[in-house]
Order: sequence, then structure tokens, then C-alpha cells
Amino acid sequence: MNKFEQACNILREKNCDGWLIVCNEQSDIHSEFMLGIKTHGRHYIFIAADGHHAVFSVPMEAFMIKKALDHQGIQVNVEVYENMGELKNKLRKILNNKRIALNYGKIFNSKDNTEYADYLRVGDYFALNSLAYNVEFISAAPIIYQLRMIKNEKDLEDLRETCKVTMEILNTLPDWIKIGMTEKEIKARLEHEYLKIGEPSFETIIASCVHSADPHHNTSQKKIKKGVLLIDTGVRINQMCSDITWTFWVGSKPPEQFIKAYSILLKAKEISLEYYKDGEKNCTPALKCREYLRKEGYNPDELFIHGLGHSIGFQVHDVGARISKSVSKEEILKENMVYSNEPGLYWKNQWGIRIEDDIIIKKEKCERVTLAPKDPLLI
Amino acid sequence: MNKFEQACNILREKNCDGWLIVCNEQSDIHSEFMLGIKTHGRHYIFIAADGHHAVFSVPMEAFMIKKALDHQGIQVNVEVYENMGELKNKLRKILNNKRIALNYGKIFNSKDNTEYADYLRVGDYFALNSLAYNVEFISAAPIIYQLRMIKNEKDLEDLRETCKVTMEILNTLPDWIKIGMTEKEIKARLEHEYLKIGEPSFETIIASCVHSADPHHNTSQKKIKKGVLLIDTGVRINQMCSDITWTFWVGSKPPEQFIKAYSILLKAKEISLEYYKDGEKNCTPALKCREYLRKEGYNPDELFIHGLGHSIGFQVHDVGARISKSVSKEEILKENMVYSNEPGLYWKNQWGIRIEDDIIIKKEKCERVTLAPKDPLLI
Repeated sequence: MNKFEQACNILREKNCDGWLIVCNEQSDIHSEFMLGIKTHGRHYIFIAADGHHAVFSVPMEAFMIKKALDHQGIQVNVEVYENMGELKNKLRKILNNKRIALNYGKIFNSKDNTEYADYLRVGDYFALNSLAYNVEFISAAPIIYQLRMIKNEKDLEDLRETCKVTMEILNTLPDWIKIGMTEKEIKARLEHEYLKIGEPSFETIIASCVHSADPHHNTSQKKIKKGVLLIDTGVRINQMCSDITWTFWVGSKPPEQFIKAYSILLKAKEISLEYYKDGEKNCTPALKCREYLRKEGYNPDELFIHGLGHSIGFQVHDVGARISKSVSKEEILKENMVYSNEPGLYWKNQWGIRIEDDIIIKKEKCERVTLAPKDPLLI
Repeated sequence: MNKFEQACNILREKNCDGWLIVCNEQSDIHSEFMLGIKTHGRHYIFIAADGHHAVFSVPMEAFMIKKALDHQGIQVNVEVYENMGELKNKLRKILNNKRIALNYGKIFNSKDNTEYADYLRVGDYFALNSLAYNVEFISAAPIIYQLRMIKNEKDLEDLRETCKVTMEILNTLPDWIKIGMTEKEIKARLEHEYLKIGEPSFETIIASCVHSADPHHNTSQKKIKKGVLLIDTGVRINQMCSDITWTFWVGSKPPEQFIKAYSILLKAKEISLEYYKDGEKNCTPALKCREYLRKEGYNPDELFIHGLGHSIGFQVHDVGARISKSVSKEEILKENMVYSNEPGLYWKNQWGIRIEDDIIIKKEKCERVTLAPKDPLLI
């Protein structure tokens, strides 16, 4: 069953006439999700409950969109619009007197935060509202959740392959990273490998020494020297992302405090992974991880300044609730969800450490699709 | 004057109390524009007319944001929020009883289309509306236009340097492109160069043979062979983007139809550039270009399926109106705007050709900051 058919079934369940995806300059990732290609022009994808799907595109991309859909065997009417008047008429026709799902989410809602669905922009929303007659717009969050949160076997096979390839590339790091290379040079070399086979899942973070104290450091022109080297990176192949962080010590003799923190963090990881399984609350692995860190003398409130995990898949930060101490207790992990596991410790303005792997949630115990090194020595 | 001070001045002119930028997972490019760094967590940037600026950030990125602002000598109160309740209270305080600009634009508005300002998402807009008391929200489009449309001397110097570096990299293409390389390999090698010094402005398009018929072809694993090779690429250094398309003929003897199309397109480019100057209407260069193509026997309505140019700067598709036949006649080019000039011809399912350079609008005649090759022979 292709994605249009899947979406169609959900629309019928929800008693909804259609799902409209508005995309301009890649503003909504669900365009790529449905079409299988990246576009730039303003276009509208209408998935109709009755199967009469349509795409309205500028001339320059219409043919490419048609080919991409044909390639997947999906029947969609791809229509070119030449100006705004034409576009408005086409939109009116599909919207009037209908119940339509749009990609907006709820923010600031502790029990049902659906910001993962929040893509539609305000100007576009006003424009659609001013256009159509007797239309009811509803949030597409349940559709997006159902399509993307739990992965199917094909997705999981692709994810395993992506993770395997990422590990192979990262395993070459000790062969070529040298003191004196810049952070950007390391990033460039890694992403060069990714680009030959896919694309980076996100902008690689290379953080040397004090830069590792910032979990989301922007990779710089600073040269690598003796000390901590944190690498947070991932590749996207067949629309499945990996997300891995390895923290190394560059130089021969890591100080005791680094060795200790590394081994405690590895242990915290093992403990939390016991709770990465079907039926557990999303908050539990995070709470267990923090409890252990605290017991070992690392105050997580000061040192572990982010969540333990996020959903991974089509995007590196995929749909659904995070694994974190503050997530609603009603969020439950389910089989074939995919999550990161990334405990970290950060001493502000000094250094930081994070060890991240990717995990498939299973019934009895999780499936680890990446494996961070036990030994943090790099050079 | 830094960007916060510039924005402050505009806010006072517009009788507006503040400009609020909402950003989550890089949803609004104006976060990077104001802070100078890229972030992932949900954060709010408040530029206050009275100078009491604030940023509300998650713990993991607050310190990095503070450092980035300090580095630019900008006084901003960076406050951490630990949960949604705290965040809501902070937002209420700055919004209540105020007139606040938000990043939304007007779509479907032929005379005043401001989609370049449309970043705020619907869920976020609803959340802000439900939160504050007696607040008036207005579009930040005029602020964004004033800050970004006309470039200052520093921007232009950076742009010239970016373009010079891009040309140097592209000039090496004939040395290393070989028949049998994949499109992705060429993209990877180019972007590897960019990543060492900056980042790609956008995803490089490498389109071999029939792929060149799609102006926005998604670079594939197809091997390069004899025929057309279209390369659309650019680098971003110091937050200034280049955007260049060169079309080559791979192999020794290009057919007459390719040689003819190439030379006509080069000439169309020269003709249109006469109108890339201060005071001209945005539509004029496009109309002149199309007129010439038609005269030479190439029907632009069928073959030239996109606009002639777009604004370039902080983003590769920067703010402001395009240069196109269908843009409002009220749009006028002004000194120190930066635009692409990219005539193209495409024969569906056969091949295409596009020649693109970057241009600074000046009083008497434009300044060309890139120069496409006169000779399209590659190998």
C-alpha cells in the first residue's frame, strides 16, 4: 500500500474529505514524504478521501513531480498553474463544502503537544481561509502520527542499512583525523562520504575541547587539539536517517575525570535501554538514566541539560513525543518506534560528553542498530 | 549599527513595541539572521523598541546563544525556560498590551505579495493568541524587507568574495569531471569544497542529459555520459550566498542545436542585463529576454518555464519580488539589490540549458559578480 492509499484510509476513518499539504521553498517536509522528491516552487498536494488526488505546481516542476509519482505507481492529477488567479480557482474547487486536514499542530499543550505537525504558515492559512466557501479545517496531526510514528518493515530495513553504513564510515575516523585539522574539515570529509550515497541527516557537529560544552555547537574553523572531540552526525539514505554521537579523547592520556564520566555515561545508557521497550512510559528511561547519574555524583539538573531521546525516521527529529523527564506520563513507547538514546554531561565553558545510539523499540527488549565505542581513545 | 539596533529603529518608525521571532527546528531563518548561529530547540527572540531585548531558550542552547550575541557586542537578556509553564509566563510579560510584529506574510496578493516574511506556523500563532492579553499582532514583512532587501557595503563585499570563491571552485570542474562519475559524486565533491569554508547555499543540482530538462532535477546516482551537463550550485560564506548555473556539453562535438541555443541564451542574458539597473521595473528584464528568445525562434511560453531572476543574499532565494514577466509592474529595482540572472530553455523529456549569474543592481549599469563561461565545452 503506497502512502497515498494509507493516507486515504486514515482520512476515511477520520471522516475527512482530504488532506492538503501546502509547500513553498521546502517549507513542509510532508511534500517530500508524499512525492518522494524535493521541490522549491509553491505547490499544493491534495490527498482526497475519494482517491481523486491532485497536485498544483508551477510549470518548472510539474513534469518532475508527475514522473516521481508515476515512478511509484501513484495515480495523481498533476496540474500546472500559471498565475495566482488560476491557482485560487483550483484550490476553491477542492476546498468548498469540505472537511480538510491541514498541517498545523497544538503548541503549549502539555498532554497533546503536536508541534511535529505544525508546518503550515500563517499567511498561507489566512489565504486558504479567505478563499474557500463553507470549508472546515482540522489538524492533520493524527494523520501524520499514524503515517510516520510506527515504522513498517521496509522502513526498519532501510534504517538498519543506513545505520550500518554510518557505522562503517565512522569506524574510519581514527584512520584520518589528525591534530591540526579544523572542525569544518572533519565535517566536510564526513559529509562528502554521505553525499556520495545519500545526504547528511542534519548538519554534523564537530566540537573540539571547550566547544563540546555546547550540545549544539556550530562547527567552526578551530583546529583540533589534544582534549575532548565530540562528533554528532548522521546520514540519510532511502529517506531514513541515522543520528549518532561519539565522544573521543584526542591524545594519549585522557584525564581520570574524562575516563570516569565516559564509563558512567555508558552505564547510564545501558540502564536506560532496559526501559526502551513496548509499553513503557516515554519518561521512564529518562528518569532511570538521571537517577543513576545522580547516584554516581553527577547532578543531572545541572549537567544533563537535554532530553534522553527523540523519535528518528524520515527526519532526524521525527514525529511524536520525546523521551524526557518532562514528557507527559500518558506517552507510551510502542513496538517499531525508533528513538535515539543520548545521555550527556556538560560542564559549562569547560567540556562535554555525549554518547548516542539509535534504537528500535521491541516487545521484550530494544534492538540496537548502532553501537557507540567502549573505548573513547582516538589518536 | 548591529541588526538589533537597525530593527529597533524600524520598530520605532512603525510605532511598534517589538518584533517576536518564533523558531523551532530552524523553522525561521530570521533566528540565524539575528543571532548569527543555528539552533534547534524552541526559542523566542524578542527585539524590543525600547532596547530591552530578550531570548527565551531551552537550557542546552542558552549559553551558546549568549556567547554568540556577546561576540557581536549585542546586549540581550538570554533566559532559560525549563518547561512550558515558565515559557508562557515569560511570553505573556512581553506581549501583554503591546503592538507586536510577527513573521507572517500575505499570500495570493498580486500587488503586495510578502510570502518572503511568512515563517510563523499556525499552531504557534494560535498559541500566542491564546496567551496574551490585549496584544495587537501585525506582519513583520516591512521590517524584514528593510533589513534584508537592499544590501549594505559589508554585505556586498562578502557577496563579491563568496562569488569569487565559487568561480574559483567551478573553474576546476574541467580538471576532474570524467565520464562515468555519478551525478551525486560530482555534487559531493563540489559540496566538500564548500563545507571546508562555508556551506552549500542550497542542494547542488547535477543534471546529466535528459535530467537537464527538469530545471530542479534531484541529483541522482546516474552516471555522466556524453551530452548536456547542467550544474546549478552555490556556496554560503559569511552568510552571503552565491547561485550559479553552468551548462556544459560533455564530449567533443556538441550538436548544432546545442551550440545555437547556448549562444542565443548568452545573448538573451546580455540583453536582459541592460535592464538590471536602478529604477527599472522588475518585469522589464524578463520581458526583454523573452522577446529576444521569441524573435530567435524559441517560444518562451513553452521553453522558458521559469522566472528570469530572484533576490539573493542571506538566503539563496532572498526577500523581495522576483524578476519575472508576471510580477507586479509596481515592483522597481533599486541600487544594491542583488539578483540572479538565469535564462533557460527546456525541451521536455529531452534536454535543457540554463546560464545563471549573480548581479548587483547599480545606478547606470549592473555589476556582474560572476561570469558564466562563453564556451560550454567541458571534456
